[in-house]
Amino acid sequence: MKKDNSPARGHRDLLPDDVQTRDGLLAAISGVYARYGYRRIETPALENIERLTRGQGGENEKLIFRVLRRGLPPTIEATTPTDSLVDLGLRYDLTVPLTRFYGQHAATLPFPFRSFQFGPVWRAERPQKGRYRQFHQCDIDLIGEPGTLAEIELIEATVEALITVGVNRAVVRVSDRRFLAALAATLGMVGASADSFFVTLDKLDKLGWSGVREQLVLSGLAHGGLNRIEDIVDTLVATRPEEIPNAIADAVPALADHVIDDLNHTLRAAAAIPAMGDDAATVTFDPTLVRGMGYYTGQIFEIGHADSTSSIAGGGRYDDLIGSTMGRSVPACGFSIGFERIVDLVTLSAAPTRLALLAEPGLDPIRLAALARGLRENGPPVVVIPVRGKWGTQLSRLEEEGFTSYMHVRPENLDGTLNHEERPLRRP
Amino acid sequence: MKKDNSPARGHRDLLPDDVQTRDGLLAAISGVYARYGYRRIETPALENIERLTRGQGGENEKLIFRVLRRGLPPTIEATTPTDSLVDLGLRYDLTVPLTRFYGQHAATLPFPFRSFQFGPVWRAERPQKGRYRQFHQCDIDLIGEPGTLAEIELIEATVEALITVGVNRAVVRVSDRRFLAALAATLGMVGASADSFFVTLDKLDKLGWSGVREQLVLSGLAHGGLNRIEDIVDTLVATRPEEIPNAIADAVPALADHVIDDLNHTLRAAAAIPAMGDDAATVTFDPTLVRGMGYYTGQIFEIGHADSTSSIAGGGRYDDLIGSTMGRSVPACGFSIGFERIVDLVTLSAAPTRLALLAEPGLDPIRLAALARGLRENGPPVVVIPVRGKWGTQLSRLEEEGFTSYMHVRPENLDGTLNHEERPLRRP
Repeated sequence: MKKDNSPARGHRDLLPDDVQTRDGLLAAISGVYARYGYRRIETPALENIERLTRGQGGENEKLIFRVLRRGLPPTIEATTPTDSLVDLGLRYDLTVPLTRFYGQHAATLPFPFRSFQFGPVWRAERPQKGRYRQFHQCDIDLIGEPGTLAEIELIEATVEALITVGVNRAVVRVSDRRFLAALAATLGMVGASADSFFVTLDKLDKLGWSGVREQLVLSGLAHGGLNRIEDIVDTLVATRPEEIPNAIADAVPALADHVIDDLNHTLRAAAAIPAMGDDAATVTFDPTLVRGMGYYTGQIFEIGHADSTSSIAGGGRYDDLIGSTMGRSVPACGFSIGFERIVDLVTLSAAPTRLALLAEPGLDPIRLAALARGLRENGPPVVVIPVRGKWGTQLSRLEEEGFTSYMHVRPENLDGTLNHEERPLRRP
Repeated sequence: MKKDNSPARGHRDLLPDDVQTRDGLLAAISGVYARYGYRRIETPALENIERLTRGQGGENEKLIFRVLRRGLPPTIEATTPTDSLVDLGLRYDLTVPLTRFYGQHAATLPFPFRSFQFGPVWRAERPQKGRYRQFHQCDIDLIGEPGTLAEIELIEATVEALITVGVNRAVVRVSDRRFLAALAATLGMVGASADSFFVTLDKLDKLGWSGVREQLVLSGLAHGGLNRIEDIVDTLVATRPEEIPNAIADAVPALADHVIDDLNHTLRAAAAIPAMGDDAATVTFDPTLVRGMGYYTGQIFEIGHADSTSSIAGGGRYDDLIGSTMGRSVPACGFSIGFERIVDLVTLSAAPTRLALLAEPGLDPIRLAALARGLRENGPPVVVIPVRGKWGTQLSRLEEEGFTSYMHVRPENLDGTLNHEERPLRRP
């Protein structure tokens, strides 16, 4: 009887063409990152549940797939706390595991350490079109570098990776959490209320100023000072790149000089990447850029693209996270490519050349294998397929399946005295 | 405060050298399988729990990591069956997902379909040295091919893959479940008692004949006929390869001729693989080979190696599994490489050439990035590292970290008028 063979709800299978595209993208991105000295590491999919629920993941922590302890009895007694049944969870990002990894292996790793990660993460999100509960993240992180060398390198490497896979005209937006904090402070907002201010400001592109204003007033965060914020942001958005540092210093006098110098360094160096010159990418200061996660401490960046409604890469400096499990301070900066979004942006590579060896029944298996072996040696992939059904139908199907040529193997041409003729399948 | 940063119990992290070895192995194996027309697919790590607990996985089903339903209350109020709290599980192999995958996508896949899978599976086994709860499997399967073309191709491709990654002198052992069934039938054992006989026979290499005999008698399976079984097996083990078909026909007259013909085909064709000639691998008929899983229906094979206590690859024909969810019969045959065992067998590839750009403080970031970019373009990976601490100590550490050369970048040689001198780090 035919049964339902769908994947679990919110999940998907990857067919050969899907995997080929993804493998190609990964190889190209890996190649770029390797030239910058980033080396790939891997951590397990499962982490202890306490590690995943320390607040670092924000809203994502509500979406964890939790794993039942082994050895539980067949029946759970009444009034058992659900949490007590769980000891592991599937990771929801690659940053929590990286923090654990670095804390565990720092002594045997280079310093500074350039980490590249590519792997699946899981979130029990409401299934929706084009978004899945298992998806891949692609992160590079530079751990141990306190200066803008990190930010500059991460931006250049990521832009180069995007261009290498054919994603052109990316827009890199840069800001700094310390700039945002100083901006909030001018309105008297510090700590938690500054955080809420950031979250609302982050929605400016969706809500517009009137919407942002409304939300801020509703949440009792801001009143009279809002005009000033709006002015500052509008002014900075209209400022030419080379005048940004002075404009920021004028607008937010409380901001430390070294923060402005760092921003200046990053913006100038990013603008000097050759790709920026020929319009393959652009870089800009964005005073409304916030980034969701709470752990950023310095510069933040995001890459957008006209063909993608959400950002295609994002990252920033997070100096307090890695050291939090190590009893000492370790600066760190990271950039994550939204791998699934890139997959949607790029076009499929052409199907490879493939030869079908159409074998008549009853051929000597040793000779048939030897023929295939010889053709395979320096040629395209060779696939042995028994002749079956109508000849024309089989040839049409092979063509549909992506074969580019075939060879008809009969007993009389397997003895080595006759030439085997390779015929094209694709119509010219 | 320093915290425990170990991975979850029974799990491990993969360091850059580990990942490099594994990536290299995978690339080599993929390359071989691609030439035979196998294309990679991927299925999700999570499957519906009912699919994982249909008995197909035997003992492995007891080792499933089970995932808690989402949306459960904080407290389990009433006495509840544990099973009702679970809706998903982590896959324990790649065969259950392949069966689902093929059932779901058969209409859009080539026929026959050559599948290659590489991915993690999870088993909550008692942690022990060198074995982990998450590990990778590497499977090829030929679905839709009823004849020995499948067995012969799978054996050749797998042997070639092993030789390509440097695993030589592999010993391929071949048998057939139908031969074993006929052997058991001569002792009057059919169905479940035949299965128990197989399981015991499988331990011959550990228990010897006296141990096997003891177990069979203890479990009430066999009595007088055991001498005959021992004679048959001993005779077949001593038989020269080319005489195996006749010897089997003599020993087990009830066995159908076409089973013997098929075995003859596979053994002859496997022996004719060029690698077998120059001793890179050998193939042999093994009347005591059983293979653990219950789903095999025809020929079975296993590859052993002198340096590995357990087998390094195994597989066989399973004609009833794929079709079981599709309402029609679909022949299939597969071969799985024990990826983690291969990792243990091969030696690490040499570290790549890497250049450290040692940057003095205060360099212009744009010029520094440009220098690195130019060196990176057609050269080795270039890693920018600020000068810090004692010069000699830093150089020694770079050498330990695998850098092969360095370049000292000072303000006076960054202006383009002085040459940058690359110096070797490795002592000759």
